[in-house]
Amino acid sequence: MTAVSDREFLLSLADAADEVTLPLFRRQIGVDNKLDADFDPVTEADRGAERAIRDLIRKSYPEDAILGEEYGEDRGGSRKWVIDPIDGTRLFITGVPLWGTLIGLMENGRATAGIMSQPYTGERFLAGPWGAEHLRQGMVTPLKIRSTKRIEDAIMFSTTPRHFEGDVRSRYEALEAKTKLTRFGTDCYGFCMLAAGHADLVVERDLKPYDIVALIPIIEQAGGIVSNWSGGRMEDGGDLIAAATPQLHAAAMEMLNG
Amino acid sequence: MTAVSDREFLLSLADAADEVTLPLFRRQIGVDNKLDADFDPVTEADRGAERAIRDLIRKSYPEDAILGEEYGEDRGGSRKWVIDPIDGTRLFITGVPLWGTLIGLMENGRATAGIMSQPYTGERFLAGPWGAEHLRQGMVTPLKIRSTKRIEDAIMFSTTPRHFEGDVRSRYEALEAKTKLTRFGTDCYGFCMLAAGHADLVVERDLKPYDIVALIPIIEQAGGIVSNWSGGRMEDGGDLIAAATPQLHAAAMEMLNG
Repeated sequence: MTAVSDREFLLSLADAADEVTLPLFRRQIGVDNKLDADFDPVTEADRGAERAIRDLIRKSYPEDAILGEEYGEDRGGSRKWVIDPIDGTRLFITGVPLWGTLIGLMENGRATAGIMSQPYTGERFLAGPWGAEHLRQGMVTPLKIRSTKRIEDAIMFSTTPRHFEGDVRSRYEALEAKTKLTRFGTDCYGFCMLAAGHADLVVERDLKPYDIVALIPIIEQAGGIVSNWSGGRMEDGGDLIAAATPQLHAAAMEMLNG
Repeated sequence: MTAVSDREFLLSLADAADEVTLPLFRRQIGVDNKLDADFDPVTEADRGAERAIRDLIRKSYPEDAILGEEYGEDRGGSRKWVIDPIDGTRLFITGVPLWGTLIGLMENGRATAGIMSQPYTGERFLAGPWGAEHLRQGMVTPLKIRSTKRIEDAIMFSTTPRHFEGDVRSRYEALEAKTKLTRFGTDCYGFCMLAAGHADLVVERDLKPYDIVALIPIIEQAGGIVSNWSGGRMEDGGDLIAAATPQLHAAAMEMLNG
């Protein structure tokens, strides 16, 4: 074991990831450029960042488990690191600086600490038992969720309405129509804006653990509620509701379940 | 008349706007904060930035016309400045740094120069007869559109699929389904990513002149095509198609018109 705190360690993991991802952002080659057909910046960034993060974890905590989007699961003890090296690959490939590197820490099955790093805007959203923080340009600001209770007053985020098809479509559309405002296309950045008090509700379908584990402590430590559509924990992924208040969370859950 | 170039003048207008908008970004007060119910950061930013821009134009070019989103039209000579102080107010109020200040210059009815300024990311997208450029942290990079010709290979942006209702809905949905990837919620930032070669197609409905005049030179000088759905100029607003190539533009126009 090392003496470094989980907070400092998460920041050092984000530093290592940023060194890989940022130089590859907006390096996309035109679709018709045959010379570099094998060079895919997002794949390079995804794999390179996850390798950098895994290497540092292996060195400092060889007994911990690791689950990553690119390189699968290494089993281990009661602590598990959960990594999405580039959450929002579609944002990454379209040049939009709202993607993030997500690194979460689980202890005994619960997400206890996590970081989202967006190196182009220079932002980190970071949380653990010590609290939830926004870091940028040397400034540290506490993340604090707001207190919206009614769907009519809520600003909602979702990756895309296209994820709500089949039998949930009409229920999702009724929810969207009832919100004050709904915005699409934000991926992990939307969760961070919820934690920072700029939005009230996020709904998503079929998330993987690496999409959400790092964000659970960021939402919870900022004062928010996150669960699946049955009200259970999200550490194993699934359909998600994240909300500013228990009242708003319950109202959204009721509408989505019909 | 002054000796300063249109390029330098556009940059000085953006500087004046940024001084107003950036300090108000993410200053949103919680919806339930009754103490500051009259303080609306986006309205303050919108009005303050447009006033700052108008004042500078009036001082340097008292005979030019000005059209702004907040303060309407001042008639004048053959040159007209067209201003949207905050394009993407919904992004602004949700803390997402993809809004922009748009300032365009029209001469004899044609958009000839324009700037988009996003002060949180520190970016400017700027164009005129001298070319099209991305500016950030002292770096100047030419904007160059890519050469995608087929809808099947195209990445498309649109503000929201909800703008395509009624009789265009099925035609829009067929277009979206045919693209390689469609992303929502980018507003002016999406046009800039098109100009920078990270996307291939933008479609929008019912734009106002101040939504698009500044962006026309940015797209055209980067090598792209922008028109309304009939193939006409966009300076007066309307339904829009912006595309990387004439082939892609024609294919999208055909699908949207049915």
